[in-house]
Amino acid sequence: MIISGKNSIYEALAGKITINKVMILSTQHDDFSKKIIDMCKSRHVRFDFVKKETLDKIATHHQGYVADVTEFEYSSLDDILEGKQNHFILILDNIQDPHNFGSIIRVCDCVGVDGIIIPSRHSVLVNETVYKTSGGAISHVKIAKVGNINEVIKALKEQNVWVYCAEAGGKSLYSNDYKGSVALVMGSEGEGVSRLTRELCDEVISLPMFGKVNSLNVSTATSAILYEMVRQREKL
Amino acid sequence: MIISGKNSIYEALAGKITINKVMILSTQHDDFSKKIIDMCKSRHVRFDFVKKETLDKIATHHQGYVADVTEFEYSSLDDILEGKQNHFILILDNIQDPHNFGSIIRVCDCVGVDGIIIPSRHSVLVNETVYKTSGGAISHVKIAKVGNINEVIKALKEQNVWVYCAEAGGKSLYSNDYKGSVALVMGSEGEGVSRLTRELCDEVISLPMFGKVNSLNVSTATSAILYEMVRQREKL
Repeated sequence: MIISGKNSIYEALAGKITINKVMILSTQHDDFSKKIIDMCKSRHVRFDFVKKETLDKIATHHQGYVADVTEFEYSSLDDILEGKQNHFILILDNIQDPHNFGSIIRVCDCVGVDGIIIPSRHSVLVNETVYKTSGGAISHVKIAKVGNINEVIKALKEQNVWVYCAEAGGKSLYSNDYKGSVALVMGSEGEGVSRLTRELCDEVISLPMFGKVNSLNVSTATSAILYEMVRQREKL
Repeated sequence: MIISGKNSIYEALAGKITINKVMILSTQHDDFSKKIIDMCKSRHVRFDFVKKETLDKIATHHQGYVADVTEFEYSSLDDILEGKQNHFILILDNIQDPHNFGSIIRVCDCVGVDGIIIPSRHSVLVNETVYKTSGGAISHVKIAKVGNINEVIKALKEQNVWVYCAEAGGKSLYSNDYKGSVALVMGSEGEGVSRLTRELCDEVISLPMFGKVNSLNVSTATSAILYEMVRQREKL
């Protein structure tokens, strides 16, 4: 997979992703390029200086930096659960838009969730747009791709994780205590959380609404909800 | 200006925007099309049934509904301030991306801000993409376009509005009281809030960060901050 842009390359080098090669525009001789070269050296990653035309052929908006990386390595559910006492998990039910997915990954890095769980079918997967929109956060956030999120919800409940589903018409977000082990299920852009999944959840919660249209983009809704959860969890 | 899609047309008809004409795909004969026709009739808006090819030429992803509307009518600063005791205002310092702007307008509708203030230069203005990304919220949220946001900040401070600037390195979002008259300044995607503007603000606030990259998209950051403000203001 090709990734490009300063942020993406920097965070890929700072994270755990396997990088086959970094290509740097040959006219770059600033502090940032020195930092990238140092990182490549210390991680034993090959780097080449190339012409602008070469980069332009491979990527748009590359800012002088392109890298060839191995496909995104998904985590397992166990990787996300392991070693944690107070779970903090996000489950995405069939998100379609790679920009939303990337923005949500950034939010998850900021609030420090243990990981994100997505279904392997009917959902956008990690691609170049997700990588880019995540602003590099994808190199640090665990994502597990599972066959059936309903089975995962059942398994989490057995481990005493309280599973919340965000949907209109539920209990106010602000009337719950999120300090224990929690998982949040966010639905797809068009359809919301599917009926069967919603019924499996312990509780439906909603952001209070004070407007006329009263509809949020899934990434802005996820941000407001996860930040309320972290406010309580960190006693802020 | 051409707007398209079910949500946009519905909210335009439900809002105050001036609509010159609505075009409906001639094969639409469902409850939604009946509702749109009823709304056109009650608002004395002309509507035509047209072929798919006609709509395809005018808009993409139109879902069978296109409207020709007059240019967006900005509010004045007075429209936003008038009749309010406890101001709740968002100021956007040079936002560039129409998708971010649209998402932020949706958040503003949901939390019920009095209005949004944007600079007339160096900022994305209301265009078709903003209209669409706002999911129709733009028909209900007041937006004022001003020559100089710094002058507006000074004027707001004279009216005892407490002006917060969101930037890294400030006081925690969660350590303030937002129940009075408040304005929030959010910076542009690349540059944040400009220095002069930041210095004019009463206080710099930041979302606490618990990750590695610790950077949010401006729309997800705005959502988390405005929801914390509304949580306090509405005593939720």
